[in-house]
Amino acid sequence: MFLDASGSAPLTKRTIEAFQAGLAEGWADPARLHTESRRSLALLDGARAAFADALGARPEHVHLAPSAHLALERVIAGINAARRGRDRILASAIERDATLHAARHMTAGNVTLLPVDSLGHVDLDRLADELCVPDVALAAVQHGNHEIGTLQRLEAIADLTAAARVPLVVDATATLGHVPAPARWDAVVGNAADWGGPAGLGIVALRPSTRWLPVWPEGDDWAPGGVSVPGTLAAAVALQERLETMATTDARLRAMVDRIRTAAASWPGVDVVGDPDERLPHIVTFSCLYVDGEALLTSLDREGIAVGSGSACTSSTLEPSRVLASIGALSHGNVRLGLHPGVTEAQATRFLEVMPRIVARLREQAGAPAL
Amino acid sequence: MFLDASGSAPLTKRTIEAFQAGLAEGWADPARLHTESRRSLALLDGARAAFADALGARPEHVHLAPSAHLALERVIAGINAARRGRDRILASAIERDATLHAARHMTAGNVTLLPVDSLGHVDLDRLADELCVPDVALAAVQHGNHEIGTLQRLEAIADLTAAARVPLVVDATATLGHVPAPARWDAVVGNAADWGGPAGLGIVALRPSTRWLPVWPEGDDWAPGGVSVPGTLAAAVALQERLETMATTDARLRAMVDRIRTAAASWPGVDVVGDPDERLPHIVTFSCLYVDGEALLTSLDREGIAVGSGSACTSSTLEPSRVLASIGALSHGNVRLGLHPGVTEAQATRFLEVMPRIVARLREQAGAPAL
Repeated sequence: MFLDASGSAPLTKRTIEAFQAGLAEGWADPARLHTESRRSLALLDGARAAFADALGARPEHVHLAPSAHLALERVIAGINAARRGRDRILASAIERDATLHAARHMTAGNVTLLPVDSLGHVDLDRLADELCVPDVALAAVQHGNHEIGTLQRLEAIADLTAAARVPLVVDATATLGHVPAPARWDAVVGNAADWGGPAGLGIVALRPSTRWLPVWPEGDDWAPGGVSVPGTLAAAVALQERLETMATTDARLRAMVDRIRTAAASWPGVDVVGDPDERLPHIVTFSCLYVDGEALLTSLDREGIAVGSGSACTSSTLEPSRVLASIGALSHGNVRLGLHPGVTEAQATRFLEVMPRIVARLREQAGAPAL
Repeated sequence: MFLDASGSAPLTKRTIEAFQAGLAEGWADPARLHTESRRSLALLDGARAAFADALGARPEHVHLAPSAHLALERVIAGINAARRGRDRILASAIERDATLHAARHMTAGNVTLLPVDSLGHVDLDRLADELCVPDVALAAVQHGNHEIGTLQRLEAIADLTAAARVPLVVDATATLGHVPAPARWDAVVGNAADWGGPAGLGIVALRPSTRWLPVWPEGDDWAPGGVSVPGTLAAAVALQERLETMATTDARLRAMVDRIRTAAASWPGVDVVGDPDERLPHIVTFSCLYVDGEALLTSLDREGIAVGSGSACTSSTLEPSRVLASIGALSHGNVRLGLHPGVTEAQATRFLEVMPRIVARLREQAGAPAL
């Protein structure tokens, strides 16, 4: 029972079939001249055109990278480099680590974090103030947050950045394939694994007017050494499948999340976080007072239920979540559900039955006060 | 009839089966805590142990990267950064572009190219002289060359670099899985696609004593955003298969290449290049006077024969090959064969029958003088 579909998801039958076709037809290096390679290149170009179509971009302005992480890194590095004389990056406080690390690396730490409110929305007044200083190289704002699901108000944000002539880099790595693609950006980044494609592909789309400079050794190549052709083909098919079924999946998962949010909010000592309306359809996160996050995940795992956690993304960094801290939420005993389209009502029911029992047991074991 | 197996090859049945098993079992993000992710991590760790074993390294010193290109880039950047106060890189004149671009990028162009002789062997006297100057951050020398097949004399080279206490970075991206792994290196890089694995994986192995510093935004992570678990599993299985069959494949392909070398050398106006003995078993390259390289490749492709070319690696850069220029060979009308283990004697025979006919026709069309 996999309820951690944020950044990865089981591959659908159609995606696996596309992968297999890609292994058979797209194994050759697409950069060479003969028939086998031209066939690989045609598959890659077809996938690129599908991504461009999904994002409202031109294929020649869509770049592929071997991960969303590297895609974010290169787009921030490239746009920053083209804005000579401006040496500060604005980023929301709840951007991904990849974005913030890249921004700090490229500006020697000259990054201003834009605060967010308790639902996770960027402070627009603060953004407007910061944009008045003419030293801003770019602004990085997510389309939607991978931990709490909140969607940013990109229309208002893009109005401000456009008026200041500051490029807006939109991280859509948690949203593509789940909600309609963002319309307002100067650069946008997506993550194939998040929409049900295989891991190992990030995509970047740029506007024709977005200037960038390659600041990496291999010139204008965004994917030095190339990307996997079968993986890219499978990613395009997975995205297509998500887009075809988006309306019904959205309605179904949104209702399921509403049901989970309502139930969880009724449990004692549980905070449900993120915007209840302006949100991703499939993400829901809550924190449980007096409960250890790792123990919670492990207990659920023993029941055969896989969930994520803002405070337990990797086994090595069980630190309180920066995103939850930024919205002023309780950050321990944190559970994040990511519902992929295959999740059933029965699975949600089972989770809602198991979860309060485990929380009560863990609190009892920890000698927590009554709530 | 695919005779361009240098950097890519058709996947074997066993490799494809491993890939499919990986898609079924290894789709989850290996960096999370639950059962699905631990299963992915176990597959990744198993593959890493197999690479370590093949290279004679410890698993904890084997790093995975999303391409051999990025692996070369990061190992050169990381080792260079740890050698503060030394700001020059030595590299053989026939290293890959990825190596030379990275070296120039990291040293602001302070790269000394070591000349090679007419068979492609690095000039050892020149290397010794350069190592006398105490400004050398590292030396980058290939195990074997991807275009001409010559194997470097790494024992002698490593004796010199070790005496000078200069780290030796060995590019084994054209050799792993074809000949025994090199024994002498401080860092070594391999390319999964070259040994018949899927594209999208480079590996780096370091000695425990090799110092490096992360000079990229994501700290000590060599593969920001991760690598494909199914692809890595398939790469390990492909390498295992190559190692198991190496002795018989080597003997068979070596004899086939000898046959092709002898035949080609007897054609008028044809130069066969590279060391005839100290070489990769599966690579053979020759150049044809008065023949256009692209026309030659296209004509062979029309006959259903895919070959490579030192001067036609990509459709966009039909420039004379730097490697062929370095050994003083004719660089136009260049054909490189890379024979994968599935190539048959009948295919070699057909190539030897078709090739002289096409060369003669192209020369006639170009009005070339008699040879």
